[in-house]
Amino acid sequence: MGAPTSIRMKKLINRPESVVHDALSGMAEAHADLLRIDVDLQVIVRKDAPINGKVGVISGGGSGHEPMHGGFVGRGMLDAACPGAIFTSPVPDQMLAATKAVNGGAGVLHIVKNYTGDVMNFEMAAELGQAENIQVESVVIDDDVAVRDSLYTAGRRGVGATVLAEKICGGAAESGATLKQVADICRKVNANARSMGMALTSCVTPAAGKPTFDLGADEMEIGIGIHGEPGRTRMKLAPASQIAELLVNPILDDLPFKSGDSVLAFVNGMGGTPLIELYVMYNEVARILKGRGVTITRHLIGNYITSLEMAGSSVTLLRLDDELTRLWDEPVLTPALRWGV
Amino acid sequence: MGAPTSIRMKKLINRPESVVHDALSGMAEAHADLLRIDVDLQVIVRKDAPINGKVGVISGGGSGHEPMHGGFVGRGMLDAACPGAIFTSPVPDQMLAATKAVNGGAGVLHIVKNYTGDVMNFEMAAELGQAENIQVESVVIDDDVAVRDSLYTAGRRGVGATVLAEKICGGAAESGATLKQVADICRKVNANARSMGMALTSCVTPAAGKPTFDLGADEMEIGIGIHGEPGRTRMKLAPASQIAELLVNPILDDLPFKSGDSVLAFVNGMGGTPLIELYVMYNEVARILKGRGVTITRHLIGNYITSLEMAGSSVTLLRLDDELTRLWDEPVLTPALRWGV
Repeated sequence: MGAPTSIRMKKLINRPESVVHDALSGMAEAHADLLRIDVDLQVIVRKDAPINGKVGVISGGGSGHEPMHGGFVGRGMLDAACPGAIFTSPVPDQMLAATKAVNGGAGVLHIVKNYTGDVMNFEMAAELGQAENIQVESVVIDDDVAVRDSLYTAGRRGVGATVLAEKICGGAAESGATLKQVADICRKVNANARSMGMALTSCVTPAAGKPTFDLGADEMEIGIGIHGEPGRTRMKLAPASQIAELLVNPILDDLPFKSGDSVLAFVNGMGGTPLIELYVMYNEVARILKGRGVTITRHLIGNYITSLEMAGSSVTLLRLDDELTRLWDEPVLTPALRWGV
Repeated sequence: MGAPTSIRMKKLINRPESVVHDALSGMAEAHADLLRIDVDLQVIVRKDAPINGKVGVISGGGSGHEPMHGGFVGRGMLDAACPGAIFTSPVPDQMLAATKAVNGGAGVLHIVKNYTGDVMNFEMAAELGQAENIQVESVVIDDDVAVRDSLYTAGRRGVGATVLAEKICGGAAESGATLKQVADICRKVNANARSMGMALTSCVTPAAGKPTFDLGADEMEIGIGIHGEPGRTRMKLAPASQIAELLVNPILDDLPFKSGDSVLAFVNGMGGTPLIELYVMYNEVARILKGRGVTITRHLIGNYITSLEMAGSSVTLLRLDDELTRLWDEPVLTPALRWGV
């Protein structure tokens, strides 16, 4: 028999083929004050772009990770985002259109998550942009400590640090930094951030109509990727306290984070996990960090880089200094993150 | 036999008995700058309460609906919230403690969702507060058009309008309105708001460890309550466009909303539905309203009044005038809603 219909396709959608189009149409309806959306080309642009003399910051990737990236377009964060089909890289044409739309003469930063398709297509888009005399810098985010090389990825995957890099680079660009400065800050975020995620359930892509992977009724996957790629280990369900240890200890050991460090702690939901559970996780993460002498000075808790309706959580830690803290605190006005405005 | 373990209890928790305690501990860790939390008594208070001369606004209800209500405590919204056990009313002692903690001499408004336990306990708390010479007004929210009388409720249930009332009353109190004025505004919000929800899946309370209700693999429930109470009808899965009609048309017809009305459109997720689907729903809601001549001038899209990990959505429409619009736009600084600050 296989999976029942309930697991195959219980979604608030019209047709599998129209999900991205329909969701972008909804974003366009809701956020006309902030965004210009080309629903057919699938490019989301900050309404007042290009801004003369400001570095443009763009990102993009497969859909299904909302609010990333489209929900982060706006003042103080991204100037544009190009969503692909679900879990599928956008194409160079989208990226080039976004690059041209946000170029205010100071160049454009591409923030690229490390997946083979994204990297390849952003490289091509950068070349196309440069051929049109737009300065482009690219930074690849690869913060996931779970596995080295993976389905879709050579090297580490890019996950939660992407959200933090987009906010911090957006703050820098808004403050008047040059393209080289914004790109350096992006590399600094990536160098100081580490992440790991886990799943309690799979997700179902609308096109496939069945779970991306199979997970036993009493199992969880530690080190999961945001497209359901395999992680480090599949194991029996455990309490949140143990799950937090399985995520946080490898993160701390990898950089390594040291006693006395200040961090931004980002406890992210994978899409189907309710907020009450994310606060339970945050409590465990805070407990572990205290035990290691690491101080949380900023935090982000919620569903920000998701995998459709997957149940689970990821943790990202970013070591902060004064510069990163200041840029994190800069005002932001986007559909998904907003403060100071 | 029954449901497999996966459906019974795939949650990021430690023990069923400790979920609320652990989540409140996480909130206390994260939001020490905004909130004071008595984790044992289960009372969340705005850090700078009581504010001399300001009306206090409090609410409360069962846990499992996060971010409501605790995530709405802070400047410009609630002064305190008392979460009960999962899907269980808080007790009068919690409500009294919250009332006393936020009384700055100008009285306290209780915003009460219409469930028998909540109403009874808030009535008792109001009497206890008045016995201690605190002026208390109570407003019961009952915006759910799905059913009249229901499991746990005499009359209509209180759902999404609660979130809007908390924001708008908080804005009024912050602006210096009197207790009577804030209570009148709360009644005005309730009188002009209507809601209806639906579920694609059940949820599982940690204590029960099994689905609250059974829903076939190809079925959905229209008119669901936020504790999984039965709705209007159980039917086969349908496209988002039809689901939106099934929610929005009864809402429009009930008040009734008329051509020329301006509304705040609130498309809410039930906890397990990802944002991409909520934007698909928002697009359909906007389409229907356009067809009826109703203009969306404000919106809220996301998981704000949830039912643990239930998949589904609710729609709330609030008819706006200048006063309600102005109060909605007032600055707010809470864990879950933040703007203008």
